[in-house]
Amino acid sequence: MNPILSVFETSPDRGRGLARDMRVRWALEEVRQPYDVRLVSFSALEEPAHRARNPFGQIPTYEDGELSLFESGAIVLHIAEQHSGLLPVDVTARGRALAWIFAAIDTVEPPIFDLDIAGIVEGGKPWHAERKPMLEDRVRTRLRELAAWLGERDWLEGEFTAGDLMMVTVLRRLQGSDLLGEQPGLAAYVARAEARPAFSRAFASQKAVYDNAEGRSA
Amino acid sequence: MNPILSVFETSPDRGRGLARDMRVRWALEEVRQPYDVRLVSFSALEEPAHRARNPFGQIPTYEDGELSLFESGAIVLHIAEQHSGLLPVDVTARGRALAWIFAAIDTVEPPIFDLDIAGIVEGGKPWHAERKPMLEDRVRTRLRELAAWLGERDWLEGEFTAGDLMMVTVLRRLQGSDLLGEQPGLAAYVARAEARPAFSRAFASQKAVYDNAEGRSA
Repeated sequence: MNPILSVFETSPDRGRGLARDMRVRWALEEVRQPYDVRLVSFSALEEPAHRARNPFGQIPTYEDGELSLFESGAIVLHIAEQHSGLLPVDVTARGRALAWIFAAIDTVEPPIFDLDIAGIVEGGKPWHAERKPMLEDRVRTRLRELAAWLGERDWLEGEFTAGDLMMVTVLRRLQGSDLLGEQPGLAAYVARAEARPAFSRAFASQKAVYDNAEGRSA
Repeated sequence: MNPILSVFETSPDRGRGLARDMRVRWALEEVRQPYDVRLVSFSALEEPAHRARNPFGQIPTYEDGELSLFESGAIVLHIAEQHSGLLPVDVTARGRALAWIFAAIDTVEPPIFDLDIAGIVEGGKPWHAERKPMLEDRVRTRLRELAAWLGERDWLEGEFTAGDLMMVTVLRRLQGSDLLGEQPGLAAYVARAEARPAFSRAFASQKAVYDNAEGRSA
């Protein structure tokens, strides 16, 4: 039995791989674990069957035998623990990878998410023009700090880990803004990650779901 | 050699235990691991010595022998992995605890943090009165969903885990707002956690740091 991943039936990012199932797909491809997909419509996010899998009504969810998981970070970490290749065994190196997983989600993503959401939810409000530069500066600060750490490294701690996987999916949310381009080292880091075969396979899988949904509704 | 935790020399929360070192102190008390503290001033957060420990200039940081860690979530998880009592051994129960650690940081905390920060940074802006109810409603949604999950349970998954520890520290940021009181089940959950002896010891330790700093500067 393959694990089952719940994903949007029609992703709001139009197949650009920005929804949080992309992290899990990528991790599964890195460790060569086949999986099945359950397509979830927006209305189904509210239904008891989905809420039982995720109390907050989000995707992705992940079921593997008796284990039912939610939160993309937890799912990626679980996969990294169950397979080799994404999390070092050495306790010190493992700790560093954990630090980057949490830095991606808890320090770098929040200002990027806030900027994104403000554009969507408050883009038409009179104050958005004044708030936007403030939100962008918060993002710039984190990108500058991250770029300073990365320096000439290929990956955050030498070898590619789940920490890089999480960080790159966070930085990819900046597609369409100029902020990532202001830090060429980070743009190159994202490009290096996107060139991994596992990333390409994951990206193609999620894009196929979106393209199929479009085809059915045409 | 005890592990060393970096904390604010003078916490902006005036000793209410809302800074992120509280999570780590609590985890260390739960597993009965003694630790030493390094006091960091705000200006020292910018210095190379601190940036080497945390590229984003935040507290807490954690050093244990060769391992230098940052991100409170990663530190708590590391402690939970190194000692028994905070993370179940069974792979299914462990996965559930991971899900709640990430739910606390990635789903419940962001709207609480946004509400908090908006009051501090944008409290004087003309738009704050219109944005505040919107931010409060985002918090309400997450609290309602969390309360629905918790129901009559004492803890999120039966036994107290690092997931509860993280979630409670997130909910405690709502001190001083009425939002937590709107969900009596969650308020009782926080009170239940605060009644744990390990929480009390951790709270007293961080409060002593603040009280000492005040004494010195009087």
